[in-house]
Amino acid sequence: MRVDCDAAIIGGGVIGSSIAYHMAKRGKKVILLERERLAGQASSAAAGMLAAQAEMNEAGPLFELARRSRAMFPELAEDLKQLCGIDIGLVQKGMFKIALTSEEETELHRIIDFQCAAGEKAEWMSGEEVRRHEIEVSGDVRGAMFIPDDGQVSAPDLSLAFAKSAASLGAQIREFTEVKSLILEKGNVAGVMTQEDTIYCDRVVVASGFWSGRLLEQAGCKTPIYPVKGECFSVISEVPLIRSTIFSHGCYLVPKKGGRTLIGATMKEHSYDRKVTLEGIATLLERAKRLVPGIVHAEWEKAWAGLRPQTPDGLPYLGEHSKWKGLFIAAGHYRNGILLSPITGKLAADWAEGKEDGKLPMKAFAVERHSDDPIVKAGVK
Amino acid sequence: MRVDCDAAIIGGGVIGSSIAYHMAKRGKKVILLERERLAGQASSAAAGMLAAQAEMNEAGPLFELARRSRAMFPELAEDLKQLCGIDIGLVQKGMFKIALTSEEETELHRIIDFQCAAGEKAEWMSGEEVRRHEIEVSGDVRGAMFIPDDGQVSAPDLSLAFAKSAASLGAQIREFTEVKSLILEKGNVAGVMTQEDTIYCDRVVVASGFWSGRLLEQAGCKTPIYPVKGECFSVISEVPLIRSTIFSHGCYLVPKKGGRTLIGATMKEHSYDRKVTLEGIATLLERAKRLVPGIVHAEWEKAWAGLRPQTPDGLPYLGEHSKWKGLFIAAGHYRNGILLSPITGKLAADWAEGKEDGKLPMKAFAVERHSDDPIVKAGVK
Amino acid sequence: MRVDCDAAIIGGGVIGSSIAYHMAKRGKKVILLERERLAGQASSAAAGMLAAQAEMNEAGPLFELARRSRAMFPELAEDLKQLCGIDIGLVQKGMFKIALTSEEETELHRIIDFQCAAGEKAEWMSGEEVRRHEIEVSGDVRGAMFIPDDGQVSAPDLSLAFAKSAASLGAQIREFTEVKSLILEKGNVAGVMTQEDTIYCDRVVVASGFWSGRLLEQAGCKTPIYPVKGECFSVISEVPLIRSTIFSHGCYLVPKKGGRTLIGATMKEHSYDRKVTLEGIATLLERAKRLVPGIVHAEWEKAWAGLRPQTPDGLPYLGEHSKWKGLFIAAGHYRNGILLSPITGKLAADWAEGKEDGKLPMKAFAVERHSDDPIVKAGVK
Amino acid sequence: MRVDCDAAIIGGGVIGSSIAYHMAKRGKKVILLERERLAGQASSAAAGMLAAQAEMNEAGPLFELARRSRAMFPELAEDLKQLCGIDIGLVQKGMFKIALTSEEETELHRIIDFQCAAGEKAEWMSGEEVRRHEIEVSGDVRGAMFIPDDGQVSAPDLSLAFAKSAASLGAQIREFTEVKSLILEKGNVAGVMTQEDTIYCDRVVVASGFWSGRLLEQAGCKTPIYPVKGECFSVISEVPLIRSTIFSHGCYLVPKKGGRTLIGATMKEHSYDRKVTLEGIATLLERAKRLVPGIVHAEWEKAWAGLRPQTPDGLPYLGEHSKWKGLFIAAGHYRNGILLSPITGKLAADWAEGKEDGKLPMKAFAVERHSDDPIVKAGVK
Repeated sequence: MRVDCDAAIIGGGVIGSSIAYHMAKRGKKVILLERERLAGQASSAAAGMLAAQAEMNEAGPLFELARRSRAMFPELAEDLKQLCGIDIGLVQKGMFKIALTSEEETELHRIIDFQCAAGEKAEWMSGEEVRRHEIEVSGDVRGAMFIPDDGQVSAPDLSLAFAKSAASLGAQIREFTEVKSLILEKGNVAGVMTQEDTIYCDRVVVASGFWSGRLLEQAGCKTPIYPVKGECFSVISEVPLIRSTIFSHGCYLVPKKGGRTLIGATMKEHSYDRKVTLEGIATLLERAKRLVPGIVHAEWEKAWAGLRPQTPDGLPYLGEHSKWKGLFIAAGHYRNGILLSPITGKLAADWAEGKEDGKLPMKAFAVERHSDDPIVKAGVK
Repeated sequence: MRVDCDAAIIGGGVIGSSIAYHMAKRGKKVILLERERLAGQASSAAAGMLAAQAEMNEAGPLFELARRSRAMFPELAEDLKQLCGIDIGLVQKGMFKIALTSEEETELHRIIDFQCAAGEKAEWMSGEEVRRHEIEVSGDVRGAMFIPDDGQVSAPDLSLAFAKSAASLGAQIREFTEVKSLILEKGNVAGVMTQEDTIYCDRVVVASGFWSGRLLEQAGCKTPIYPVKGECFSVISEVPLIRSTIFSHGCYLVPKKGGRTLIGATMKEHSYDRKVTLEGIATLLERAKRLVPGIVHAEWEKAWAGLRPQTPDGLPYLGEHSKWKGLFIAAGHYRNGILLSPITGKLAADWAEGKEDGKLPMKAFAVERHSDDPIVKAGVK
Repeated sequence: MRVDCDAAIIGGGVIGSSIAYHMAKRGKKVILLERERLAGQASSAAAGMLAAQAEMNEAGPLFELARRSRAMFPELAEDLKQLCGIDIGLVQKGMFKIALTSEEETELHRIIDFQCAAGEKAEWMSGEEVRRHEIEVSGDVRGAMFIPDDGQVSAPDLSLAFAKSAASLGAQIREFTEVKSLILEKGNVAGVMTQEDTIYCDRVVVASGFWSGRLLEQAGCKTPIYPVKGECFSVISEVPLIRSTIFSHGCYLVPKKGGRTLIGATMKEHSYDRKVTLEGIATLLERAKRLVPGIVHAEWEKAWAGLRPQTPDGLPYLGEHSKWKGLFIAAGHYRNGILLSPITGKLAADWAEGKEDGKLPMKAFAVERHSDDPIVKAGVK
Repeated sequence: MRVDCDAAIIGGGVIGSSIAYHMAKRGKKVILLERERLAGQASSAAAGMLAAQAEMNEAGPLFELARRSRAMFPELAEDLKQLCGIDIGLVQKGMFKIALTSEEETELHRIIDFQCAAGEKAEWMSGEEVRRHEIEVSGDVRGAMFIPDDGQVSAPDLSLAFAKSAASLGAQIREFTEVKSLILEKGNVAGVMTQEDTIYCDRVVVASGFWSGRLLEQAGCKTPIYPVKGECFSVISEVPLIRSTIFSHGCYLVPKKGGRTLIGATMKEHSYDRKVTLEGIATLLERAKRLVPGIVHAEWEKAWAGLRPQTPDGLPYLGEHSKWKGLFIAAGHYRNGILLSPITGKLAADWAEGKEDGKLPMKAFAVERHSDDPIVKAGVK
């Protein structure tokens, strides 16, 4: 069957869903195509941290993008709740980035300095000060960088809220729909072929995370994305163990509603399976105990894993392909997909309207920046 | 072990949890005792309608109670969200009480008159008007009473939010704790015995719904409560099927967040099991199709059942036992447990402070009103 | 990484797993590659009927294949139990193919004649006789063809038992492993490329059901396979509702262990999603009630859906590709994947050894039989 | 409603279900009453070891009972499969009881001697011999007592198979049925009262595990039973990690079908909740790693907990109450409920027929043996 629309978005994770929402909000007729179920992969596995500062140790384009995106959440939360009834669980009670050693302490002071210089809030707190705010934090903690403006959302809720809000604004959502190929004609994208239909449109956005590769190869696009598996688990306690997110090297604890605490996440590069190993749990458990010893008394809830889409330089691919007009890419957000989803959606909606956001250093995210990279040429692994 | 507190509350459903929350809010040291898990029974099975008007066909004490309770929700939703992070899903988009026959139409006009006379909003809408608001409603619908102020919440979320908020205010929550007996001494309640501990307190609230009977018998209390089983199921659609609750004789459809619609509920008196039968699903499905034919295209989600605690006259037992000072009962809320939970919690907190709410006709809910009832004496069945 | 083996099998459903088991049993070093999880699609959704006669209304190659495969089950059940501990739930209590109308009765008599002539057992039973064996069968049932030798297994258990037994015989199982492309060189298959590795082997079997298309296209193979969605549900009763499978036009009931009854299955051609619709349940429920009215008192368990891989002529593709030596196809088993899995595994193990099974009409299943079909050329839909 | 039968059995766990099966097999009309769902508590949480020797460090009545019961399994497995289709997963590949220290080694030699003297098979194997059988076993293992005749079953399957087989033999199963009181008249039991019915029968068996207390108190019966919580988890590997059960102080690993391994179990006395704690998992994980280091690479499946019903002297209560003729007790099987379920069912069926098993030392299990125990009088805790 032939179908016409303004834009086809490939990938029903948090990035594709945000793009569908932002485009639908501007009146575009969009179709969101998802191979399996909405938010079925990394978007649901994520811890939902909005770590615009906690994850950024250097100034640079990613830091700019992250700050811009974080600022969009309060208004977004309202709008999504209004449109589809889903509360995205936005909490802005700050984040502690922990130092356990003097080296870590020194490093945190450096980061605090650069972030303050960049106009963000960040301050050093001694171990005692930290424990005054978070009484369960271990005596081994030397201190922490406290970031009042970093927060968190419920990642599965955010992803679904984008998609369901997009639907309520007129977007069409198609689950269980695999895109077989792009339609590329004379330097333009003209649509996509699915198992069932041919969808004609002059804008196609590939937002399939780690699975973006196959379609992009068809377009001759060198945008290497590889998975970094992350395992997590969650526990429940009667009274919340912690109030703010506790972030450290190799382990974070994120307090969720109703006394849940989420513990993440291992990092296994080039691991394509989504199995939780006993080793993953053992490692996280050991690390979490070192930060918050009392966690052992909490009730076990469940464990899960997801694949983060990583790129050679750690930056997402965001933009139009130079060879195929109308073919956009928004993939490779690695650990920052939840945080960057609002700004990515906004940028894609801009692209669809031919607008450019002059303030952001988009060159760093250019989709063809790895085309001539010898490492990439040689294969990522 | 010996434990002391201000009040022990027996039953971790929506009623007991609301009481714990309201008492904890007033600074009381309370212990909430639940035999299994919080919100494990009727409270989680409920559809969460706040049908203060839709379920009330006559003026009377229940109508008064219901209106007062409904009015408490907006402030409550804010407070619970603040305390424990749980969004109770409060939606106030009104309710349509449907007429399929002329008899039903006549009856609805009568109800509209009495409710308007009582100062509530309720208006007749023709079938066409209904379909203008809810395009999926069947052409067979003659019209409906529209009740703008009735709404709904997420029942499982409300129950948990009460308990978790109580805990954050200092209440102690004990799951998997069965109360073996009340401690009754010289006309006073003095506490309760659990499997593990003896809890001393001069106020005990029995709020175990249909399971309240055994403990109350120990106190010589004739408060017959019997179960009315209700089966439900839910479906999911991309775009919400309906925006407001559709209520009819024998079937209701409640729109939930993210495109879920909940369809309830059968009524099986004196059915003690919580099994969903194929018959239950067939019956609901047939009725739902008559109201909203397009529902057949929605995706099946799941089915479940719960036991509503019913009393001989359909009114809950609310108040102190005359023989045992300090022994309070809050049980038998039947189909209205979610709706009545806020006012019940407030009343119980008043009791604990010796206050009386002068405005409510509490006599109708007196806990001993069935003591001399010949039917009750002869056994409910 | 480079990996070497005797054969790579693509697809961890019941067909691929059976092939892995049969090859491993003959000492081959095989690797089974599954995109997601073992038995995650149609193989787990199947009812597990071994309807070698009930589904075959005509003599022909499929009938031959089915009889041969059915006969393999008893020995297979023993061997799999021994190897991996999984009981495949083989039950051989016969099947009733029901007539509700006189037309259906006439048709069944014809089928009985052809099957008896072919040397199989099949007999006509009047409605009363049927009800003597199966007391819950409706009075509306005119009679049935009784097939003593058709039986059933647990489909999910069979699939897993094949894979786990293969593993215990030395096969390597790789879940979450997508095959990106076949390695085709000078008229030979030389292996496959996965996301992670290059697997070299001179035999590759494509057994991915409906998902086989993409890889086969790479080999220039015209083996159109399209999905026919089937929805099912199951109920539980204390005492089994039926003892033998009840099979009819549009609905079957299969008795499973422990009082479960499985009710299947709708037929939705070219439906690619795996959502259960309310319509699917309503349809099955109506039909099941007509056969076994008492089913309404059973307890609802759950509902699910799967995609059967269908071909233009209803026959699977079984054999080697003429253009690429060593490239074998075993896909398109439609409703008969469970039944045909043993013989398919055996045939594939034969292929790997260069043997031919002289007794089976393999030409009917030739993998290139649709290459010049104008319908196929024009696209299946 | 009034109901008549030969015997009412209270408790739908493995013990009550075995009794129902054994009685039904002898033609008795029995009713099995379960408060919630069949096999919902300890019976489903159990690892299913048949450790007639591995758990018995001394000669004595429990050892006699255990050996007799273990011997019943092979025939039982056949019969249950026949009656209800459920395979109980009986595996008799022996058990290794591990020594990690020289003290443990000495103790195991003593146990081997006593068991061989009692006519059972048990032999010492050095660490190297153990690793020859089980290659994943750690080099830290000094050696083990190998018990060829101990084996295992699937505990949830055994429990359900008993109940479903009983049903197929005519027993009535009533789930969600709480017994409110025993009917005791003139030194005889005359039946039970449930929420719904009065069941008349001259034999009542209380088999509710840790929950047996309340009803027995009504009969003035001092049979103290207290819970010992056990937490477990399971992992999955492609090829089974181990072939035989590995049993040690504080941790056991049981290989289940399809590559599952079950790891148990913590021991928390007087813990009434069924929550899995992070501490429980951490403890088991540490211990399991010491025995089978490679377990860390296995895939996490799930965790659960159950309450074992323990008695002051560690022996179950088995027999008739002297004060109330016809009132039988079969409870308090602690860690041995699965193992002892066949013999317990047989004994109860004997009781119902007035038979006595002359060979077993039943006095040790007498139901009133703790009546005058000062510790019991003072309360178990």
